[in-house]
Amino acid sequence: MKTKPNPIDRSSFEPAYLQLVRVLREQIAAGQFRPGDRLPSESQLCRRYQVSPMTVRRAINLLLEQGVVTTERGRGTFVKPLELGGVSFSLDRFQDLLTDRDGARIQLLDVRIVEADERVAAELDLPVGDRVIHMQRLFHKNGEPLIYHAHHLIYDPKRPVVEAEMEVTSLYGLLSGSGTSLVKWGRLGVHAAVLDASQARLLRRSEGAPAFYLEHTFYDYEDRPVSWGGFTCPGDCFHFTATVGVVEGCEPSRAAPGRI
Amino acid sequence: MKTKPNPIDRSSFEPAYLQLVRVLREQIAAGQFRPGDRLPSESQLCRRYQVSPMTVRRAINLLLEQGVVTTERGRGTFVKPLELGGVSFSLDRFQDLLTDRDGARIQLLDVRIVEADERVAAELDLPVGDRVIHMQRLFHKNGEPLIYHAHHLIYDPKRPVVEAEMEVTSLYGLLSGSGTSLVKWGRLGVHAAVLDASQARLLRRSEGAPAFYLEHTFYDYEDRPVSWGGFTCPGDCFHFTATVGVVEGCEPSRAAPGRI
Repeated sequence: MKTKPNPIDRSSFEPAYLQLVRVLREQIAAGQFRPGDRLPSESQLCRRYQVSPMTVRRAINLLLEQGVVTTERGRGTFVKPLELGGVSFSLDRFQDLLTDRDGARIQLLDVRIVEADERVAAELDLPVGDRVIHMQRLFHKNGEPLIYHAHHLIYDPKRPVVEAEMEVTSLYGLLSGSGTSLVKWGRLGVHAAVLDASQARLLRRSEGAPAFYLEHTFYDYEDRPVSWGGFTCPGDCFHFTATVGVVEGCEPSRAAPGRI
Repeated sequence: MKTKPNPIDRSSFEPAYLQLVRVLREQIAAGQFRPGDRLPSESQLCRRYQVSPMTVRRAINLLLEQGVVTTERGRGTFVKPLELGGVSFSLDRFQDLLTDRDGARIQLLDVRIVEADERVAAELDLPVGDRVIHMQRLFHKNGEPLIYHAHHLIYDPKRPVVEAEMEVTSLYGLLSGSGTSLVKWGRLGVHAAVLDASQARLLRRSEGAPAFYLEHTFYDYEDRPVSWGGFTCPGDCFHFTATVGVVEGCEPSRAAPGRI
């Protein structure tokens, strides 16, 4: 250790604390420090790399934020074991799937006024029996049906959600808050599901085939629900992927793009 | 606008740019600026809030990072529409499910040496027919079977993975990189699945019931795979949730805890 050249280059454009983060991550990735191992102390790191205590602290703080290390008061800084809890999966690929314009097409299957049943009434915060719009669509890609979308929307002349919805002719528009500026925020859920008979027929797959159900509830600027429904996406066309742990040249616990 | 008091408090402990971010987010959340709307220009914001151009730039940069706005060169800064692509789902709740010690128990169903078939050989980077360990476990919670776990492990006296695995008696240990410091990183995938007959029997559910299959491949410090397998988690015990859009007091596009 003593005779190794200092890998921190003070004349570099890269700030010293970022260089130190890189050096420590490389050592962790190389197994020089393993999960549960204690990193050298602040003063040891200062001496070893000829940097200020402030630089060491900024580096350790960034490693903490990145989930690479954990600190225990009075005991030091330790390499964190892999934790699946820190992993997150992104919908990037799902959106890509729908927004790739080549050969993507929305087919409107049905729009009708229905009476809200108990579930719909609860989700849209309406009395049971109130009139709501039920809309069903099918997303095609390269001539193949890919995703089934069904949702209920409020029916209110003062809140022209349906009009805005009907204008949605691109998949992108639909995913960008239903193409309307009425929507302030949404709640999303991913559920395990299977295709029912009618979905299977529409999607040209087998009844009971595994699927993701991406449920969504969108809210307006008064925080009232305006629509509730979901995308049914057969398991063969999408899955989520991510990595966990310290991989060189790769942030830990960041969602990786899914494969189709 | 002209007579409103300046909400930016220069004597506050909170940096001016963070205050400005908060003010702009509140205005977006209140619908004062809606998706597609242009924010006031840099110089307008400077005048309105009596802050420096640097403060405005730092605030806008943070809003860009948070995915709240988008900039178009020469045209200005615009409120971003909701985009599902930016949403990410976290495994926090999955880990909680397994690490809650109350009533949580691992049952070892089977461990045996088998010959690697084509799939296993490919996943573990071994020749077909090489001996590997196949391990099956069942996770119980409050006396109910909850999750089925099956994986294949390399069988190599020089890499004592199995020994480390056998020592795993807590669910937490298993999720923290199999309780071994042999594991450097992992690849994870979430697939839509259905329970097969034997899983259904073990999990006391119906064959064909919807499930998530959380696939994992773990790699050692030489980046060689050491184990491949997955958790089969019935859809009724877990789902992912998240929010999208600007909600007061809430970061956009951050994963929210799932409900059971």
